[in-house]
Amino acid sequence: MKEQFTTIQSIGRTGLLERLKKFKGKVNARTVKGSGDDSAILKTKSKHLQLLTTDTYIEGVDFDPSYTPFTHFGYKMVSSAISDIYAMNGRPSHILINLAIPNSLSVEMVEQLYAGINNACEKHDIEIAGGDLTGNHTHAVFTVNVFGEVEKQKVVKRSGAKIGDAICITGDVGGALAGLRILMREKKFWEQHGDDAIQPDLEDYKYVVQRQLMPEARKDLIDKFEEHDVLPSSMIDLTQGIIHEVTELCNASELGAYLYQAALPIAIETRHVADEMQEDVDKYALYGGEDLELIFTLTEKQVEQFVELFKDFAVIGRMTPKDEGLIMQTAEGDQIAFDDLS
Amino acid sequence: MKEQFTTIQSIGRTGLLERLKKFKGKVNARTVKGSGDDSAILKTKSKHLQLLTTDTYIEGVDFDPSYTPFTHFGYKMVSSAISDIYAMNGRPSHILINLAIPNSLSVEMVEQLYAGINNACEKHDIEIAGGDLTGNHTHAVFTVNVFGEVEKQKVVKRSGAKIGDAICITGDVGGALAGLRILMREKKFWEQHGDDAIQPDLEDYKYVVQRQLMPEARKDLIDKFEEHDVLPSSMIDLTQGIIHEVTELCNASELGAYLYQAALPIAIETRHVADEMQEDVDKYALYGGEDLELIFTLTEKQVEQFVELFKDFAVIGRMTPKDEGLIMQTAEGDQIAFDDLS
Repeated sequence: MKEQFTTIQSIGRTGLLERLKKFKGKVNARTVKGSGDDSAILKTKSKHLQLLTTDTYIEGVDFDPSYTPFTHFGYKMVSSAISDIYAMNGRPSHILINLAIPNSLSVEMVEQLYAGINNACEKHDIEIAGGDLTGNHTHAVFTVNVFGEVEKQKVVKRSGAKIGDAICITGDVGGALAGLRILMREKKFWEQHGDDAIQPDLEDYKYVVQRQLMPEARKDLIDKFEEHDVLPSSMIDLTQGIIHEVTELCNASELGAYLYQAALPIAIETRHVADEMQEDVDKYALYGGEDLELIFTLTEKQVEQFVELFKDFAVIGRMTPKDEGLIMQTAEGDQIAFDDLS
Repeated sequence: MKEQFTTIQSIGRTGLLERLKKFKGKVNARTVKGSGDDSAILKTKSKHLQLLTTDTYIEGVDFDPSYTPFTHFGYKMVSSAISDIYAMNGRPSHILINLAIPNSLSVEMVEQLYAGINNACEKHDIEIAGGDLTGNHTHAVFTVNVFGEVEKQKVVKRSGAKIGDAICITGDVGGALAGLRILMREKKFWEQHGDDAIQPDLEDYKYVVQRQLMPEARKDLIDKFEEHDVLPSSMIDLTQGIIHEVTELCNASELGAYLYQAALPIAIETRHVADEMQEDVDKYALYGGEDLELIFTLTEKQVEQFVELFKDFAVIGRMTPKDEGLIMQTAEGDQIAFDDLS
């Protein structure tokens, strides 16, 4: 069945905006006025700090529509952007969406994108408070602006880690990269064999493909911290790989870190992909980004208590003095030094 | 003299971010943390509402680098975006900048852009609180996200105008469009005659070119409102032309409007350009956007008082019942009806 392709020209910018009005996300009490005026207007809460973050996604650079359904990408854009708010121990409350869209996109595609955006927003209690819509030459550029808040005493920065703190990570790592490797292989297959080829079965790769296309921001960790009044000493979200993020924590906290390679949480599905590709799965784990897991530091005592409350995290190392640098102990007991500390 | 062209590749993303760190805008007391963490962190003020707005600018759609210096465009991006905050009677305090840049841009060009951004931010007491930096294929896409605030009792929306209110506008209109007409004529001239041609003298068009390239957001009006405790019943900024903006005020306030063509404030320089182009200057005034003037409604009594306090505004009409629609009385005494009201 051929999908409907309504050109944006045929309904115009105003017509498209009208059709997108139904996507409001989760309307919340803080909104005085969402879209429809010069700015969105929100109520403030006293004793809270405001959090602002923004991300731009470019067709062909940050996403490839040949294997990325628009609903998935809408979801992922929101997940990735709000993950930065959770990484401050905060709560996202409103987003603004800027779309720069070429004529190659149909009204239906934009609606699919918004359906994904809306789905993520409803799940995370976020209201869509407006944005900007403009035309572009050849490819799509999307920007997601997130607004959130955190109680003053509860903000968690990248700085703040102490020597001896355990470095913890939620979930597992390298899966999003494994998913990307599979999707790129499939894309190549299509390019070589065309539409007549038998569709490859992605069922075996469901987990890693899901990790790539629709990663989930770890609201559950922030909920658990709040519920049990746990405050990590530092935190960052995993978007560019463990080595990159731990380096950021080290630099911001002016410390070093010692990681245990054997402790890296890697899903069996991710290992299978690496084996199939004849690649080193530890590389996926150390340098693969986009998993949107949270890396945070706790005292040993906090770890002992927290492990009883929240199952889905692992301790992968500890913070050390700055002059010891960033070191990883391999499964064989060797030590590898990473020289990226500033 | 050939300008320096340092490729972004040669210094890398991190190197570019490092060079842009010097541009902070006007650092203010509300910032807990600007760039360098997952989100920017700001203090809240109680009794205030938060304002959020965002704009995307695309090379070749929203700006043409062949006649737009990057410093000017950086300034204009900020002016245009913060104008939306002033249009709510608010104060911009922080911006986040997203740049998606192709290889055709040099490090120096990005620095020029930031110098313009920085200049506007310093002038308007705004801090640059971070953003996002990414590569793009062929052309530049910039997004400006502005964060501001307004006292709860002082927010001015598009809705709120009352029957009989005077429709007022700051400054003069159509100048930005006149400037664009001149710049496009010059561009065509260069394309036809090449670099060997004698450079046309733009001195005569200085005013209108300035209106196009570096429009100024009307902070002075908001300052004056605050100083004398004047509260307009509605307000909007002029980005798409008087007819468009007055239509927005009418729709939001569920009213009609009666405009006087003879009262439209048009600069003599704008008239000269229209004459030279053999075009109707009233079209420039009614449909020309980007002047960043503010359109606001006051009671007759407020107008009488305000005219003593602030010189740079004109009354161009009054609000009428909705069923009377949007009407303009021409200089000859005829009436033209605009049918765009919803």
